[in-house]
This record gives sequence, structure tokens and C-alpha cells, in this order.
Amino acid sequence: MTKPVFDTIAIIGVGLIGSSVARAAKEKGGATNVVLWDQNSATLGRAAELGLGKPAASMTAAVADADAVFHCIPVGAIGAAAAACAGAMKPGAILTDVGSVKGNVARDLRAAAPQGVHVIPGHPIAGTENSGPDAGFASLFEGRWCILTPEAGGDADYLAAVDRLAEFWQRLGSRVERMDATRHDLVLAITSHLPHLIAYNIVATAHDMESVTEGEVVKFSAAGFRDFTRIAASDPTMWRDVFLNNREAVIEALGRFEDDLTALRKAIRNGDGDILFDLFTHARGIRRSIIEAGQDTAAPNFGRDTKKT
Amino acid sequence: MTKPVFDTIAIIGVGLIGSSVARAAKEKGGATNVVLWDQNSATLGRAAELGLGKPAASMTAAVADADAVFHCIPVGAIGAAAAACAGAMKPGAILTDVGSVKGNVARDLRAAAPQGVHVIPGHPIAGTENSGPDAGFASLFEGRWCILTPEAGGDADYLAAVDRLAEFWQRLGSRVERMDATRHDLVLAITSHLPHLIAYNIVATAHDMESVTEGEVVKFSAAGFRDFTRIAASDPTMWRDVFLNNREAVIEALGRFEDDLTALRKAIRNGDGDILFDLFTHARGIRRSIIEAGQDTAAPNFGRDTKKT
Repeated sequence: MTKPVFDTIAIIGVGLIGSSVARAAKEKGGATNVVLWDQNSATLGRAAELGLGKPAASMTAAVADADAVFHCIPVGAIGAAAAACAGAMKPGAILTDVGSVKGNVARDLRAAAPQGVHVIPGHPIAGTENSGPDAGFASLFEGRWCILTPEAGGDADYLAAVDRLAEFWQRLGSRVERMDATRHDLVLAITSHLPHLIAYNIVATAHDMESVTEGEVVKFSAAGFRDFTRIAASDPTMWRDVFLNNREAVIEALGRFEDDLTALRKAIRNGDGDILFDLFTHARGIRRSIIEAGQDTAAPNFGRDTKKT
Repeated sequence: MTKPVFDTIAIIGVGLIGSSVARAAKEKGGATNVVLWDQNSATLGRAAELGLGKPAASMTAAVADADAVFHCIPVGAIGAAAAACAGAMKPGAILTDVGSVKGNVARDLRAAAPQGVHVIPGHPIAGTENSGPDAGFASLFEGRWCILTPEAGGDADYLAAVDRLAEFWQRLGSRVERMDATRHDLVLAITSHLPHLIAYNIVATAHDMESVTEGEVVKFSAAGFRDFTRIAASDPTMWRDVFLNNREAVIEALGRFEDDLTALRKAIRNGDGDILFDLFTHARGIRRSIIEAGQDTAAPNFGRDTKKT
């Protein structure tokens, strides 16, 4: 087997993503040793029980020997966690994360990092609607993009550290993209944050329609609604923090969405079928592009229903 | 094998739903004979080639011997098709459809039906994002609801016809619900029409964000966006007709959605994390109800990604 990319990594937060990084790192040669920490002792205990790595006695103990420290906690909590333990990191080690927002997180990590620690914010575009150490799995990152947002103009040591972290994610099966943090936050506002916001909102709307009982909404959800409830079942703390930490880009994307919706409502009200038909035809083409890019299954209904006969 | 429910049925329109009814009817004892018609001769030829039934020489020929005629075409086209052939139907036969809107369709079917033909509008809550006779399959209706909207106060013959049509759908694996057409249109506006409208809209918004290339939207679509593109890939003609024929209920549901979105945007702008957290936590509960009701898979990511290890 190829030599693991890192000797020792520390995972701070062993939820869905942290536990998947731990599993994948061991299984695919990402790291020889995995040290775990979680502020919730029951979660940490469960992760140890699952054999995901060695539980540390404290957060500072977890990071002390690590060549790379992965903060796998909600983005609103990363700053404080990094501030509390980055001082205990080895010189030359990598300080990274897996958060869905990069601008604010990059700022917080840099503020926390001592001289000689390489701050390289990261974001694997992977996940499910489930949470916790039992929900993770080693193949979660296979074929998925991982975006790194290194700072511009680093020295040779820093660039080598970025290459090494990229190699780690590739070892886990990811394709790696380097991007400016601001651009990341804008792109993800559209491809991820706005869709989640809309999903949360429509679930709330459906629930609040007093004239229709919740029973009926649930009962007939296979008509389309159920698709939205999946992403609306994602971790509430994580998503609260995403919206609070990418406020501007999300509100900008939301404004455009609302403008488009106003135009669409007008077309329906005016009975303008051609506008609707053209828009719907165009949307079909985008779906096709996503399947061709290997970013979703071509199986009807995501392949979830009974099989074709 | 149990005796089929009908001797002969006619399927007008052999797309995803029509071809699935044809397949399921033959395979599961819905009908002994299936007669097919489609205004597109290539589609009709393909359906015959697939062995889905006997292609008719004309629409009136298709319905002449049928005990039940299923209009499986976009809701905006049902009125004209029924008007063109209902006069050729046998007395005592059932005139039904599979459209996603019931109020306007019920009105059109009743206007077209001669004395002695039983009009029973129907809507199987089943489908995929694909279209055409090759996309259909016999198990499409298994475990799915089928809503019938019979008229109130029919005579004994009519009630017997409704029971028979219900039996047909049950034979195909559906659970049958009877409902007033107006209520159907209101419930489906929330569980189906609004979600599709929102999905179409967000796909358009993502495409139009000039500052982000389409390449990036597609590339990073696994972060949430791809979920929306699936239902936005549904048949454009079908959906144009749904919005034009259920205008009032859709605009009512959309208004509520927009009000909720305004409140959500305000919470983000004000940094009110508690409002967000409570809303997101609530949404998770609705997802759970849908899974418990057997209306979606519990597998993470709809089970579409690589398997758990």
C-alpha cells in the first residue's frame, strides 16, 4: 500500500463529515493515525466505539501531534475552537476545516494560527441529510469535489502544504479545486445555500397552510414535495451558521430568485404559456448537463423507487 | 390469476404515465385488452413495438370498444381529445384521466361525455422526470396514492363504476383516495405544483447569475442544487398546462411561500439565529413523518450515491 499522506491527523468534531474523514483516511491511506475530539463526550465515546480513531483527553491534546488538524464542526464554532487549540499545534502543521462558508472561516483560522502553522481552509462538497458519527461512511467523498481556498502568495513551505492537503483529499477519492474564498462563498450561495434556504422555506409554507392538514401534505408528498424535505432535514445548527456567516452572498442570490419568481408568477397570472414552456424546456437541459458531468444519477427518481420491470 | 378488472381499456397518449398504465394493466390483471392511441404516430408506433397494446387506427376507433378510456395527455389537451372521441364510447363505459389538475379537467370531461358514460377524473400520484413510452414501467404505481374525484350524488350505476375504477388502480398497486376536485387542486398546489414551480425558478436563477459561469453551477451542484434539477426536468408541456389550469390555487400557495421567504430573509439579515434554528429543526420532523408514512426512502441522499461501507 502507498504510504499514507499524513502520519497523524486530528479530527475536531466527529459528526457526519468528521467521522467520514476519519473512516476514509484510515481506509484509503490518508493518515496512519487518527486522533479524535468532540466537545460532546457521548459523541466522542461513540466514535471511539466505532473504531474511528483514538479519542483524545482534550482538544489541545488532540492537536499536539497532528500533521493536519481538521475542524469538522459548524462554521460558527470554528473560530473559538481554533483559538482554543491552534497554539498547541506543531510548527509546519496544517490547520484546515470542512465548512460550507470560507470567507469568515479563513479569517477566524488565520487569527487563531500561530507562526509556522499553515492555514488552508477547505470544503468537501459532499454530505447527506443525516448527522452524527454513525451517519458517516468512507466512500462519502468519492467522485465529489473538494474546494481548497489557500491564501494568495504563500511561500514554498505553504505551497507544499497545500499540495499535501490536496493529495490527502484525492486519496479519499475527491477531485480538488483551488479557489478564492470570496468566489467560493458566491458560488456556493447559489449551488447550495439558496437551495437549502428555499427547501426550508417551502417545508414551512406547506406546514402552515391551515386549510390543508399536515396529514395530507405528508400523504401526497410523493408528488414533488418530498424531494425538498430531504435537504431540509440537514443539521439545523450547521445550516443556521451557514446563513449567518454567508449573509451577503445568500441575500444577493435570494434577491435574484425573488425577482425571477415575480416574473414567473406574472406569466402564470397572464396565462402566458410560451414563457412557461421555454423556461421549463431550458431547465431540462441543465439537468442533462449535471448528469453528464457525473454530479447526479441518471436513474429516474434518483433510483429510489421500485425498479424498472 | 384473478379475472382482469376490465375487458378492454383504451389509453389515449402513451407517454410515461399512459405507457405505465398499459404495462401495469396487462401485467397485474387490470385489463384483458389494451388499445392504444397517440396523436404522434411515431410515439404510437414505438408503443406498439414495445408490445404495450394494440394500436388503433384513429382515436374514435380506440375508444369504441373500451370499458374504460384513460386520457393520459397534458391537462390542457384533455378537453379537446375527450370532445373528439367521447361520442364514440359505449354506454356504461368509464371516461377518466390521469391529470395533475382535476377541477378544469372534470368540467371538460363532463362537457364531452354523452349520456350513460361515467365521468370519473383520476390522478395517480406517481411519475419520474422522464417522458415517453420507453420511460414507463409496470411498477410505477405500486405503493403510490391514486386520487379519484367522482361527482357527488351519482346513481347506483355511477357508484359501481367508481368502485370498479378504484379496483383497477388497486390492482395496479395503488392506494385509492376519493376527494372533491377543488380540494385535490388545493392540496396538490402545495404538495406538487408549488414545489415544481420553485424548482423551475431556482434553476433559472442559477443559470442567470452572470457573475458565476454555468460550468460552476453544474460542477458544484452536488451541494444541494442538483436535487431541484430533477423535478425541473419533468415534461415542459405537462407542467405548462398544470400551471395554466390550476392558476388560482398555485398563486395562492405561492403568495404564502413568498410571505414566509420575506420573514426568513429578515431573520438572516438581522442575524436572528434562533428563528433559523427553530425553523430548520421543525423541517427535520416533517421529513421524518414522510419516511414513516412510506412516501420516501430513508436511505441517505435517496440512496443514489455510493453505498455505505
